[in-house]
Amino acid sequence: MAAADQVPFDDRGLAFGDGVFETVLMRDGAPLLWPRHRARLRHGCRTLGISPPDDAALEACWQPPASGLEVLKIMVTRGSGGRGYALPERQRPRLLYRRTAFAPARSRWRGVDVCLCALRLARQPALAGIKHLNRLENVLARREWQSADIAEGLLADTDGNLVEATAMNVFWRADDAYWTPPLDASGVAGTLRAALLEQGRVQEAPLSAETLLESSAVEQLFVGNSVQGLWPVNALVTPRGRRLRRFAEAAGAPLQADAHALLGYPTLSRED
Amino acid sequence: MAAADQVPFDDRGLAFGDGVFETVLMRDGAPLLWPRHRARLRHGCRTLGISPPDDAALEACWQPPASGLEVLKIMVTRGSGGRGYALPERQRPRLLYRRTAFAPARSRWRGVDVCLCALRLARQPALAGIKHLNRLENVLARREWQSADIAEGLLADTDGNLVEATAMNVFWRADDAYWTPPLDASGVAGTLRAALLEQGRVQEAPLSAETLLESSAVEQLFVGNSVQGLWPVNALVTPRGRRLRRFAEAAGAPLQADAHALLGYPTLSRED
Repeated sequence: MAAADQVPFDDRGLAFGDGVFETVLMRDGAPLLWPRHRARLRHGCRTLGISPPDDAALEACWQPPASGLEVLKIMVTRGSGGRGYALPERQRPRLLYRRTAFAPARSRWRGVDVCLCALRLARQPALAGIKHLNRLENVLARREWQSADIAEGLLADTDGNLVEATAMNVFWRADDAYWTPPLDASGVAGTLRAALLEQGRVQEAPLSAETLLESSAVEQLFVGNSVQGLWPVNALVTPRGRRLRRFAEAAGAPLQADAHALLGYPTLSRED
Repeated sequence: MAAADQVPFDDRGLAFGDGVFETVLMRDGAPLLWPRHRARLRHGCRTLGISPPDDAALEACWQPPASGLEVLKIMVTRGSGGRGYALPERQRPRLLYRRTAFAPARSRWRGVDVCLCALRLARQPALAGIKHLNRLENVLARREWQSADIAEGLLADTDGNLVEATAMNVFWRADDAYWTPPLDASGVAGTLRAALLEQGRVQEAPLSAETLLESSAVEQLFVGNSVQGLWPVNALVTPRGRRLRRFAEAAGAPLQADAHALLGYPTLSRED
């Protein structure tokens, strides 16, 4: 699979969002959580029936190596096709990638405000979890707020269950443990989330948006991903900034230390 | 808005399916049902917050005129953007189009078999009706059958309501009238459907997939769009071809004659 930097009119990634992508943190030329990114990319390709790129094609994405932090974005589309939805007889998937110098938003490791979006995610088990190119729900949700004081937007599904944030997964502390929503009907299963689940640092549990708003059992809240690390949430607000509830101080919490160890980011002391 | 024939890596149509499209039947250089296509394109752009192309940019899509039948496909994307979902500060939408010589599948005007797909459409009122570029559900549904004897696949939503076919709208005859499902939670509101609704030839009514399968009140069934015209359905089958039920003969039915008059296609006599 040769890599391209643009796609023609008839590329099905453009026409139908028929493909998947990954966003990978690179440190000094090495991709972090790479086995998980590769596994999700391949799982997404299999779900859509796209032949996934092999190791050599993927490893070429980080040559030549650079120093410092970068973000590598990889896209795989089904390639060119006819006007209709039927698969082309001979599929030739396209691989595209780009590396960009990166600096994480360090101040957000101390705590952020996030809003609760009005948009509700549709429930589609056939596409849940994979990082496919159909992201209009995320785009619409991100349009709900403009204030730079709001770092992310939380999303519930049409049944009222908390799912994720627009570009991050969600975690909370309750009953002396850390939790994250199951993603069997919507949402993207992040690689940082997957690593924390496998290490036993978090467990899956459903949480309704209503309980999030009202229950003191939810002590701490976090949003995070494999690029930015973990942001503790100080307050949940509306897209216009009206405060809905506060959470307990969580900068330097054990979950953040575990997440940052996976990404090579610092552990914050409680008093930093 | 200048027209392009490819898009770069950072185009949001490619990255997120952040855009809309139209597929227009052209006869001797003139687009059919054009005011409806233009209206849906602009409504879709407004729904997503994309500045729509003006008349001059759209009319350039069919210059120079050609004779005979063509299909004109138009795409509008939000244009280039950064890595995240936040809108670029300055949006420069892209317009892309392509015209292709076309011949309708005339034999299908006499009747076809269609399958009932296993995939259920997610319910997302924020995106329902518009012809956006997030079409993975249609792609997955179209993968469910391979047989050339199956002309289309019907789709119900996660609540069990009939919605549409993978690339067509659905109509049925019951109680001496013609009906089509409301599209307030999923599906694409076709331009042929819109014209038939406005002319009072069809009315909206919900229909569960269960009723479609079992009720003799549903006498005739049709699938159709503004490019292919209206196909009467002889039989509903599974994706593997097992017959689920038959419908009454409907080639030459008044609804087909009305649809074909809108598209310049012939009216079939009952005995053709």
